[in-house]
Amino acid sequence: MRAYHLEAFGGTEGIVLRDDGAPRPRPADPTSIVVRVKAASLNKRDLMILYERYPLPARPGVVPLSDGAGEVVAVGRAVTRVQVGDRVSCAYFPRWLDGRITPELVDQPGCTLDGMLAEYAVLDEQWAVRVPDHLTWEEAATLPCAAVTAWNALTGGEPLLPGHTVLTLGTGPVALFAVQFAKLLGCRVVSTTSSAAKGDRLKALGADAVIDYVRTPAWGAAVREVTGGAGADLVVETGGPLTIEQSVRAGALHAQIALLITGGPDGSGIEISNAAYASSLATIRRVFVGSRTTFEEMNRAVSAHGLRPLIDRVLPFEDAPEAYRGYAQDGPFGKVVIRIGA
Amino acid sequence: MRAYHLEAFGGTEGIVLRDDGAPRPRPADPTSIVVRVKAASLNKRDLMILYERYPLPARPGVVPLSDGAGEVVAVGRAVTRVQVGDRVSCAYFPRWLDGRITPELVDQPGCTLDGMLAEYAVLDEQWAVRVPDHLTWEEAATLPCAAVTAWNALTGGEPLLPGHTVLTLGTGPVALFAVQFAKLLGCRVVSTTSSAAKGDRLKALGADAVIDYVRTPAWGAAVREVTGGAGADLVVETGGPLTIEQSVRAGALHAQIALLITGGPDGSGIEISNAAYASSLATIRRVFVGSRTTFEEMNRAVSAHGLRPLIDRVLPFEDAPEAYRGYAQDGPFGKVVIRIGA
Amino acid sequence: MRAYHLEAFGGTEGIVLRDDGAPRPRPADPTSIVVRVKAASLNKRDLMILYERYPLPARPGVVPLSDGAGEVVAVGRAVTRVQVGDRVSCAYFPRWLDGRITPELVDQPGCTLDGMLAEYAVLDEQWAVRVPDHLTWEEAATLPCAAVTAWNALTGGEPLLPGHTVLTLGTGPVALFAVQFAKLLGCRVVSTTSSAAKGDRLKALGADAVIDYVRTPAWGAAVREVTGGAGADLVVETGGPLTIEQSVRAGALHAQIALLITGGPDGSGIEISNAAYASSLATIRRVFVGSRTTFEEMNRAVSAHGLRPLIDRVLPFEDAPEAYRGYAQDGPFGKVVIRIGA
Amino acid sequence: MRAYHLEAFGGTEGIVLRDDGAPRPRPADPTSIVVRVKAASLNKRDLMILYERYPLPARPGVVPLSDGAGEVVAVGRAVTRVQVGDRVSCAYFPRWLDGRITPELVDQPGCTLDGMLAEYAVLDEQWAVRVPDHLTWEEAATLPCAAVTAWNALTGGEPLLPGHTVLTLGTGPVALFAVQFAKLLGCRVVSTTSSAAKGDRLKALGADAVIDYVRTPAWGAAVREVTGGAGADLVVETGGPLTIEQSVRAGALHAQIALLITGGPDGSGIEISNAAYASSLATIRRVFVGSRTTFEEMNRAVSAHGLRPLIDRVLPFEDAPEAYRGYAQDGPFGKVVIRIGA
Repeated sequence: MRAYHLEAFGGTEGIVLRDDGAPRPRPADPTSIVVRVKAASLNKRDLMILYERYPLPARPGVVPLSDGAGEVVAVGRAVTRVQVGDRVSCAYFPRWLDGRITPELVDQPGCTLDGMLAEYAVLDEQWAVRVPDHLTWEEAATLPCAAVTAWNALTGGEPLLPGHTVLTLGTGPVALFAVQFAKLLGCRVVSTTSSAAKGDRLKALGADAVIDYVRTPAWGAAVREVTGGAGADLVVETGGPLTIEQSVRAGALHAQIALLITGGPDGSGIEISNAAYASSLATIRRVFVGSRTTFEEMNRAVSAHGLRPLIDRVLPFEDAPEAYRGYAQDGPFGKVVIRIGA
Repeated sequence: MRAYHLEAFGGTEGIVLRDDGAPRPRPADPTSIVVRVKAASLNKRDLMILYERYPLPARPGVVPLSDGAGEVVAVGRAVTRVQVGDRVSCAYFPRWLDGRITPELVDQPGCTLDGMLAEYAVLDEQWAVRVPDHLTWEEAATLPCAAVTAWNALTGGEPLLPGHTVLTLGTGPVALFAVQFAKLLGCRVVSTTSSAAKGDRLKALGADAVIDYVRTPAWGAAVREVTGGAGADLVVETGGPLTIEQSVRAGALHAQIALLITGGPDGSGIEISNAAYASSLATIRRVFVGSRTTFEEMNRAVSAHGLRPLIDRVLPFEDAPEAYRGYAQDGPFGKVVIRIGA
Repeated sequence: MRAYHLEAFGGTEGIVLRDDGAPRPRPADPTSIVVRVKAASLNKRDLMILYERYPLPARPGVVPLSDGAGEVVAVGRAVTRVQVGDRVSCAYFPRWLDGRITPELVDQPGCTLDGMLAEYAVLDEQWAVRVPDHLTWEEAATLPCAAVTAWNALTGGEPLLPGHTVLTLGTGPVALFAVQFAKLLGCRVVSTTSSAAKGDRLKALGADAVIDYVRTPAWGAAVREVTGGAGADLVVETGGPLTIEQSVRAGALHAQIALLITGGPDGSGIEISNAAYASSLATIRRVFVGSRTTFEEMNRAVSAHGLRPLIDRVLPFEDAPEAYRGYAQDGPFGKVVIRIGA
Repeated sequence: MRAYHLEAFGGTEGIVLRDDGAPRPRPADPTSIVVRVKAASLNKRDLMILYERYPLPARPGVVPLSDGAGEVVAVGRAVTRVQVGDRVSCAYFPRWLDGRITPELVDQPGCTLDGMLAEYAVLDEQWAVRVPDHLTWEEAATLPCAAVTAWNALTGGEPLLPGHTVLTLGTGPVALFAVQFAKLLGCRVVSTTSSAAKGDRLKALGADAVIDYVRTPAWGAAVREVTGGAGADLVVETGGPLTIEQSVRAGALHAQIALLITGGPDGSGIEISNAAYASSLATIRRVFVGSRTTFEEMNRAVSAHGLRPLIDRVLPFEDAPEAYRGYAQDGPFGKVVIRIGA
């Protein structure tokens, strides 16, 4: 079988396609399953891993990418959770089943465990999550990281109610999923972007108001304005150091800030001025993807509403390094997906 | 001004219209407001009060009805929360502002405080709740009791998520609001009724599945079936003794039962068999309308979604006793409203 | 090695001691561990299993008892969570690590999995829970079922605060642990018993007030009295059908009822009168032992406070059937423990 | 009656004692009560108000101090919550009864409402909170601000459990109450101070470990060390900009940071480095004293445990300005109290 391996850090030339000569892997343990991967997708974390900026060091030679989806083609003798023919993904934190993550649960595919950029993946049956029936393989491959992160940001803290306002920042994959999910929750959505064209696409996706953060550097105040002075009830904080000050200013008195990014490219951290806090009792909650149960709850909502993830482009397996470059440079609007196999 | 008074219990002849000869009341205290009532609506509790079956004894001579809406026409000198011209209702428990109810907060209009079946109502400014702009007076008059109860049932316990299933029982006002609100939350709705015609109307309102509880006495199992074996995540338990056994059987392993009724007309109480509990770890949570803050949160959702309450009929002020009789006998589908004034 | 096996239901003669002739078992899988069991303890559920009254049918021939403690003597090659020499128990629901239980997680030692009434137990490393250092083997063997149940009852719902009142019923192991744990939480404890001698022991254990439920059949009102009219904030409901009516009457307006038992010996279920609910908005929450994380949180408290479980008697391994009989008949005050090995 | 008035900002000479010539005030409204103040106490916020550094501007001429206690000597005709003879304090946010604070509830005695540095205070009956019976007047006068803040910090977020670790910073009144309350909750306490003598007093008060933050500038790592690597489960963050970086480093993976101070004397705000977040998923929750219900819940715990607040010194009414100076300069260990009346 063919698989990419992360053989050197610092550039896409470190991602090398190898064929191990074997037709396909077998279940390694009684509880293993073998998945024929149909599609995989990229996240910012995959570039951070490649450029050694990810908090958890990757295992050299590891198969990249956390996100993918495929069909179960073989199962170990003790497997009970899945069957041959099931359509599955691997959870981002495969050992984190429910409740709170602990240090012993941090293993991740595409980092410390082999990931999905391969024709086959061997998973423990506990790691597998069934994907919604109505999704194509390419769509199903987009969910494990960005979508679960957005879902956790919206549903993992104090409950949002219909009529509450959610603020999303920019057009990265987490922000786009957050727009879609917030609408399922009955919320109003305010989004920021610096591009009028992307603003239109955000509105088409469900955003009720869009603010240009370049033209309006004090966009925190602008969010308050478009919410009649109330401010956003929840901010999906995908900017971190670059945006947190305005996010707090944009937030309602009891806003929740779901903080996804804690460091800037220049080494900066989180800074919030006393003035921003003057009208804020915001809670800042860290979000780091989510458990398998969170993934399953999200899938239930995705299925019930026939929600479709946004895909910016689909590339063939052979062009995986090109997909990395496109993700980094083009500012895609939607996920970058790699199709694997026929 | 003219107002009805509850002068005798046991029949609608006890509800007597009186004119006190004065043009309109003045603010009683510096924080009082005077509301010109435009519409009022009936709830089962108003019949229970009339027939002395309500847990809290009514004050003899009290103006009936908790539910109404009108325009503020005068305010005391110290009033800051509302202005002349505001459209308001009175909260069901006017002293219960937020958090948990306590015994000192149980006063209610139409019971221990004068209610809304009058041309004018004098309220403390703290009791007033602004009603959504898009609603007619008749629609606005339907919210304080049944709608807030339904909202609290759905949002006051463990958070529901999009894709979760809500079960409603019958076609009383709380059940109908619960269907509408559950859809705002992104939930699937299963409803019971014994009438095919009402079943169609439930579906038109948003119910995804309807079960005839007469034809299917074991409707608990039927709910599990239509949910693929999972059961309902939340039951809006408006039947109490008559339905609780099947509600528990209908519920998911971790179902929430929002229990609204604890006694049957025959004096029966809540009974749940060991067999029903065999596949249930359900939580049973009592719901008793809700606080002013809950009312305001609901209004925010109603406004954001332009939701319209269902009205079965509107009667003129002079026919209020007739409205009581119709409520009791006809099985209305939607609220029974009384229009007051021109 | 020697182990008891549940070879027939309906009486202690069905629990048979066998020697398989092998010196000791080996790790069955790469993630298995072998525990030299030092002590085991009995719970009511073990009698229910023996007499086929437990909701989950036992596997014929299974090694009985969920509760035990011992030393790790061998580990599989892939084990990382525990080391040889560690002192461990097996979680009651070994597959339920955190969050909510699901149907696929219900396996239990002494029922569907081999239990602790043996010289050795082979566990997956994920099933093991380290026991507090300060406990003897006999004490450590008492924790997995009754103590975790009591801990979950007290800490798994709405948080209790210092100064709140906890009500415990009788002197079964769950009630006794609940008395001890409630004191760690800074709560007041009211306990019921029908024995003056046991009442004294409850007070010595920490109960602030004791009520004789035989002399005072309306003990619900008596609990309200000793709490100055407020009622108990939480009831550890170990009586179920026999006691729930009085428990609701004993409870504060917003009481939590942690419901552990849902069926009576006579097939009766849960019944609560409308009169009991007249002054109650109690939440009834089902509790079924707890997750591995709950066990670990409890151990942290037990360790920090040097808490010691109560032991009524310790019998040798050879007298295990006698232990069953004593548990059923003598009304022990504290756990019945079986010592295993030298 | 005599009362101090805040007649000029910027120094204690602005706090002026006046006698209005009247024997004592009467209830201003039907729901007013008159309290004969027996003692009052100082908080840092009172100095911030004096020096115009408090977020809410004070009303010129206002009677200072939020904290005090006294005896009800007269009640308006409509008063039902309190009686003549009751021992009461005024809640810090008298209009915030329960649930969440909103902008319309921010009035405070000693700031926008007349405070307690007077022989009599006239309160609405809703503002009064009964104080624990076992406390002296001086002790009772210490509770409304610092103690409620500490209680809210410990109990207002995710529940702490016995065996969890609480970190307190320094020896200000909030930190000292937090040490005492954390012990009621069964928690371990780690405290910081720069004084060996104060360290001993912290230990006498209940602290299990004390760290000198001057000798150990990286005290975050030191807290982790004394907790066996686990870190503190909750930090009572009374330092804000000066300490937040180390607080995050001191915290457990899922630590709660109860953030009380958001600005430094030099205008600095909250800064947390990416490195600190590398091993932290901490939630940062703002705490701003608490509601009347929180005050009452705290009093229940204080009463049940006979807890006694620490008092550093008691000055006579005439020396109130001196009390302000002492509070600011001497680093008291415990509250600075002013005795009023015979």
